Amino acid sequence: MQYSYQALADQLVQDMQAGRRPTGERLPSVREGAAAFGVSASTMVRCYRHLEAQGWVQARSKSGIFVADWRAQRAARPSVKVAAPVAAPAVAFEHFASLQQRMSELYSLTAQPLRMGLHLASAAADWYPVEALARMGQRVLRSNPRALGAYPTGTGLPEFKAALIPWLAALGLDVEPEGLLITNGSTEALAVALRAVAQPGDAVVVESPAYFGLLQMLENLGLKALEVPCVPEQGMSLEALEYALEHHSGIRAVVAMPNFQNPLGCAMPESHKRRLLKLVERFGVTLIEDDAFGDLCNQAQRPQPVKAWDRHGSVIYCGSFSKSLAPAFRVGWVVGGRHHARIASLKLSQSLVTPLFEQAVLAQYMQSGAFAPHLRKLRERLAANLPLVLAAVQRHFPLDCRVTSAGGWWLWVECAPGVDTLAVLRQAVGQGVAFTPGVLFSAMGKHGNCLRLNVAQPFGPEMEFALATVGSLLKRHSLVL
Amino acid sequence: MQYSYQALADQLVQDMQAGRRPTGERLPSVREGAAAFGVSASTMVRCYRHLEAQGWVQARSKSGIFVADWRAQRAARPSVKVAAPVAAPAVAFEHFASLQQRMSELYSLTAQPLRMGLHLASAAADWYPVEALARMGQRVLRSNPRALGAYPTGTGLPEFKAALIPWLAALGLDVEPEGLLITNGSTEALAVALRAVAQPGDAVVVESPAYFGLLQMLENLGLKALEVPCVPEQGMSLEALEYALEHHSGIRAVVAMPNFQNPLGCAMPESHKRRLLKLVERFGVTLIEDDAFGDLCNQAQRPQPVKAWDRHGSVIYCGSFSKSLAPAFRVGWVVGGRHHARIASLKLSQSLVTPLFEQAVLAQYMQSGAFAPHLRKLRERLAANLPLVLAAVQRHFPLDCRVTSAGGWWLWVECAPGVDTLAVLRQAVGQGVAFTPGVLFSAMGKHGNCLRLNVAQPFGPEMEFALATVGSLLKRHSLVL
Repeated sequence: MQYSYQALADQLVQDMQAGRRPTGERLPSVREGAAAFGVSASTMVRCYRHLEAQGWVQARSKSGIFVADWRAQRAARPSVKVAAPVAAPAVAFEHFASLQQRMSELYSLTAQPLRMGLHLASAAADWYPVEALARMGQRVLRSNPRALGAYPTGTGLPEFKAALIPWLAALGLDVEPEGLLITNGSTEALAVALRAVAQPGDAVVVESPAYFGLLQMLENLGLKALEVPCVPEQGMSLEALEYALEHHSGIRAVVAMPNFQNPLGCAMPESHKRRLLKLVERFGVTLIEDDAFGDLCNQAQRPQPVKAWDRHGSVIYCGSFSKSLAPAFRVGWVVGGRHHARIASLKLSQSLVTPLFEQAVLAQYMQSGAFAPHLRKLRERLAANLPLVLAAVQRHFPLDCRVTSAGGWWLWVECAPGVDTLAVLRQAVGQGVAFTPGVLFSAMGKHGNCLRLNVAQPFGPEMEFALATVGSLLKRHSLVL
Repeated sequence: MQYSYQALADQLVQDMQAGRRPTGERLPSVREGAAAFGVSASTMVRCYRHLEAQGWVQARSKSGIFVADWRAQRAARPSVKVAAPVAAPAVAFEHFASLQQRMSELYSLTAQPLRMGLHLASAAADWYPVEALARMGQRVLRSNPRALGAYPTGTGLPEFKAALIPWLAALGLDVEPEGLLITNGSTEALAVALRAVAQPGDAVVVESPAYFGLLQMLENLGLKALEVPCVPEQGMSLEALEYALEHHSGIRAVVAMPNFQNPLGCAMPESHKRRLLKLVERFGVTLIEDDAFGDLCNQAQRPQPVKAWDRHGSVIYCGSFSKSLAPAFRVGWVVGGRHHARIASLKLSQSLVTPLFEQAVLAQYMQSGAFAPHLRKLRERLAANLPLVLAAVQRHFPLDCRVTSAGGWWLWVECAPGVDTLAVLRQAVGQGVAFTPGVLFSAMGKHGNCLRLNVAQPFGPEMEFALATVGSLLKRHSLVL
């Protein structure tokens, strides 16, 4: 009989529940089991992973797979205490079919208190000018409390637009106030941009790996994601993009982060940016440029966005201060090119207007001239932090891991083929540590052996602990293979 | 030859441009023209309206229709100065095909400085506790500036949810924190609710007249609006709703404002609310209840929402503080019933999270116990204001206008059949006064002889002037008919 991994797992669970395989018994190794049950080694591995994830078995480093104390484990509440950092994960994990479910799992896994969460896009709170922003916020409230009672209208606070436009001009963007729409973060900017150019059923090209929030957004909008590979040194492969544009007629847009792509951190060289723009123009599709990380280079000179060369309104430019200046403010913007009127209408019927208080504070902050010095400092911190994190990764991670560190915000780690970083994450959260598993960065289930680490957190003992924890789990998982 | 109004208008324009009908010439009256050109009186009226809207002719009260100084008028820039309040509108108006365009026209008309704008949903800024909110905002910023640097996650600030839940409980809603999602105003709440239950091409029942933002939202989501008449004393006609549900198979949801409907202001009696719930349950459709005006009764006792009787999660409840407490904060919420998980996912991929600062301030405000006294005062103000506005409307408006004033926020005025309130608005803005024309409250172009007045502004000489202006324009338009 040819077992599927699930049928084999069910069989083993029945054996355990009936007492035929008691707690503590050593189970066959992958090689032995494959022979004994007449399955391939990879089916055997998937079976054990599944059982381990559900708490039925335990993999012990260097000694093998054992029947776990599953009665206790499965009875435990689905929460992990940091006070018991060595406890195995007590959550009964499901086998997840879709990206939505994988994302839900990430959210529920990381909802518990963690010693070190490297899974989010956040930097250390005190890397931001929080005192200055709070002071200016107090001033705004003191000087004009009546504004809180006014029903807001329009596409953004005029003072904020006036402060933002010179900043955008310095990046090479020629924007009028009417061509600029302030949004609830760049997430909303992306959402209205996509809705403006694509209808349900249309296809959109994304980078692979791609930011999982974008993939979820496409799924929720009924759009198909065509995943075009990203190369660390160059960003989206333009050869692959050209091939995709030639072979699919239903492509409406290309979504790309040419500056410090999430999760690879790579920046597209200027020559590639110009080629990318020509390519989308040749095929008559829109480029939606997500520049949320553009300011977060670990170099002194911030690279220009593709939008800087756009003369025909082919690029919808999305930006944000959520990463560079004020994470809690949720203020982003969109410069919609030839789609701007439609974008503004969609924003209006999606959330009316963006709160004005945050915009008033940001306007004051920019007018004060403090933004450029703040960014310089933030970039220096990122640049100083990265080598420390990289060295720790090299100390702790398996030797065959390939690390990409093109930007200053992320590390993208590619482990040996077959390593399941989602399974590793489930164990890591049991020890108070989280990262983002690679499988979240693809709607096709690619990148399962990769992981993303947020390195915009000051390096110290906690991060050392976190990286050591993840490294040792990765080594153990490599051994089981 | 049988002219259409457009062909007749084109013919008259040619005559004017060729000098055959010089500036200042009196044109035939409606009756004379109808006979002379062989058209019906209503075609003649539409023709003159169209020409007047485009600046070709001028209707002079009690004396007739004259060829305008169209060279000067049509050369003028499309802006209206308040400094010259008696000037005729200089905007070359288009004939509008869709609701989107009608809304754009309203926005551009009202973008200019106005003496009195009665077209928005705003109340007087000092009717809100702006000083207290500003003070609490300063305290929030002083006590925890670091929060501004933290990347927000989750479905709402826990403290705000904790303060909101007892408030909702007092309305009869049994809500857990996980079943409550904080949104960017009730606009976003409605948008994610609609996206959760309906796909492009589906039909959604709305009240008629309905809030134009809702109609625009449906249009932008590719949903069909089925307009079911609203009766001032009872809200949505349940007989008409039942008929619609029986005769259309593609209806996914009913969107209703059972408490103080926008624009009618009517409140559905409790017996009708129970019947409405039973009806949607019988047909297996979702009720999306917009309760944004629920707190704004001009009675002491606030009516319960339909959600209070919902035992099967059939009602998606949307609320907001934008009308009742803090207009500039843009904080709303949704209790999604059986659709809640899907709604939360859509919100996440639409705008990630709602800014936390505003929620922190609102949490403090509610904890302080000041909300109930504030609401009492706001209701008293609305209740005291309404009779003054009503009396002025009766003084100035044509006698055949029918006024609905069930709530305390709006007046809905139905003028004689044939009066085009959009044309009246174009002239009113020239005199610095705006209201909302009825045609915006229907995707089918109904209610063209109606208008909505915001009466949540303290009555005084400015409002008297505004109502006198609108009233005299309405009288003049009635005369032309």
